[in-house]
Amino acid sequence: MPASRSVFFLSDRTGITAETLGHSLLTQFDGIEWKKHYASFLDSPAKVQDIVDRINTAAEREGRPPLVFSTLLDPAILVSIRQANCYLIDFFESCLGVLETALQQPSVRIPGRSHILGQDASYFRRIAAIQYALNSDDGNNSKVLADADVILVGVSRSGKTPTCVYLALQYGVLAANYPFTPEDMGRVRLPPLLQPLREKLFGLTLSASRLQAIRAERYPGSHYASFVECQRELQWQSELFQQFAIPSIDTTGISIEEISASIIDRMRLERRLYGT
Amino acid sequence: MPASRSVFFLSDRTGITAETLGHSLLTQFDGIEWKKHYASFLDSPAKVQDIVDRINTAAEREGRPPLVFSTLLDPAILVSIRQANCYLIDFFESCLGVLETALQQPSVRIPGRSHILGQDASYFRRIAAIQYALNSDDGNNSKVLADADVILVGVSRSGKTPTCVYLALQYGVLAANYPFTPEDMGRVRLPPLLQPLREKLFGLTLSASRLQAIRAERYPGSHYASFVECQRELQWQSELFQQFAIPSIDTTGISIEEISASIIDRMRLERRLYGT
Repeated sequence: MPASRSVFFLSDRTGITAETLGHSLLTQFDGIEWKKHYASFLDSPAKVQDIVDRINTAAEREGRPPLVFSTLLDPAILVSIRQANCYLIDFFESCLGVLETALQQPSVRIPGRSHILGQDASYFRRIAAIQYALNSDDGNNSKVLADADVILVGVSRSGKTPTCVYLALQYGVLAANYPFTPEDMGRVRLPPLLQPLREKLFGLTLSASRLQAIRAERYPGSHYASFVECQRELQWQSELFQQFAIPSIDTTGISIEEISASIIDRMRLERRLYGT
Repeated sequence: MPASRSVFFLSDRTGITAETLGHSLLTQFDGIEWKKHYASFLDSPAKVQDIVDRINTAAEREGRPPLVFSTLLDPAILVSIRQANCYLIDFFESCLGVLETALQQPSVRIPGRSHILGQDASYFRRIAAIQYALNSDDGNNSKVLADADVILVGVSRSGKTPTCVYLALQYGVLAANYPFTPEDMGRVRLPPLLQPLREKLFGLTLSASRLQAIRAERYPGSHYASFVECQRELQWQSELFQQFAIPSIDTTGISIEEISASIIDRMRLERRLYGT
């Protein structure tokens, strides 16, 4: 049985930065069962005292100090946390010093700045990209497809929609999707709608057994979810991708983040948020 | 004119961790115009050499070493990057040491682990949550609404849809949304569909001038986008929220991340991903 250990994610604001980096670091240690505690918007003495108590209680219960990942900026709050029985991994503190030296100027230390999108342009672009992903989800409007930065193609349940939504949210990219139809699969040729858009296409593929599992989750026992059918469709798709030199990624066992970042990288798409 | 300075985000894999923390740190320094360079999936000597060259070129052009944010794990790649003319902020290196001491075991140092969702349960939950957000987007199916963890309510264009999508992607939460209709606004009472679901409601509000700007982006010159109409709807909504004690957040000028994290925090919603 793996050892169980408490880990706290503390933040003045959303906690997203602390959670992202913390989770990422925890994956580098095997054989431990993490008991996760989240405390965002830690901005009052009462909330801080409550967390300190919870850290100390966990330390006592587990016989070892818990890990604490923090992006807290308020020095007074940090002082309290440091007095708790824990290993503190203070992301900002360990990096801000290096940055202040490099930039030869002090940091402002104002919480929450990373999530204030001051620029309207960036805000509207993001909302527009999400709206675009939702509106273009059925994929058979050539006018809508023509606006896309990238068009994801793949058989039903290959993960196109979640990837489009993620590309919109994280990067502000206009991602459309085109699901192959049984008619398309009659022969190995590009569906007519896609022919003028060939250079925007990116394929999603996966193993037949994985596709079967995903389809069976929704339509158990159907022909659609049978291994034979999944294999047939993927075989057709693989020939299509090869014949028309459509770049593609095998999404079996990888996350939406990983698929999306690969698409950005391989299609050389511009990140459209954060004024980049 | 603000000084311009190059900053690189380097990763063995998606780069999302490096970008999240890096962006967050940069917001703590004012008056600098950042020139951002991204290099994800840095996994070959040729790619590494290319980046080293780009770092050195930027250093020469700007007369100062660029910043480099890294989540690289491969020691050989890190050695090359260290030889470039830069300030290296190595997130993993600075934290893994502390963690190894705390946990009394070595880290595995295998790239890409944070984005391999080994657990099928977590994968399916996330996909299902995204699908749920999309399916429930029109908000008038009582059976669908009953399944929600949270139901966002607000006038048209108050940001409900992007927030639902983000809650699904980041937390695996089932978030539905209900847009108030002109009929609803005839009197201050809860729409009948929402009456049995009162404890799941969370309101999104914003300033009338902000709402006007958002609506005008899409329907310039319309009555719908007029300041008077925006003000009228928001006034009605504010009375409703007050009368029925519906918790709400003013989203003016804050990001989707911030809105979502506040909802998780205030509604005490369980994070449904990462096996938490």
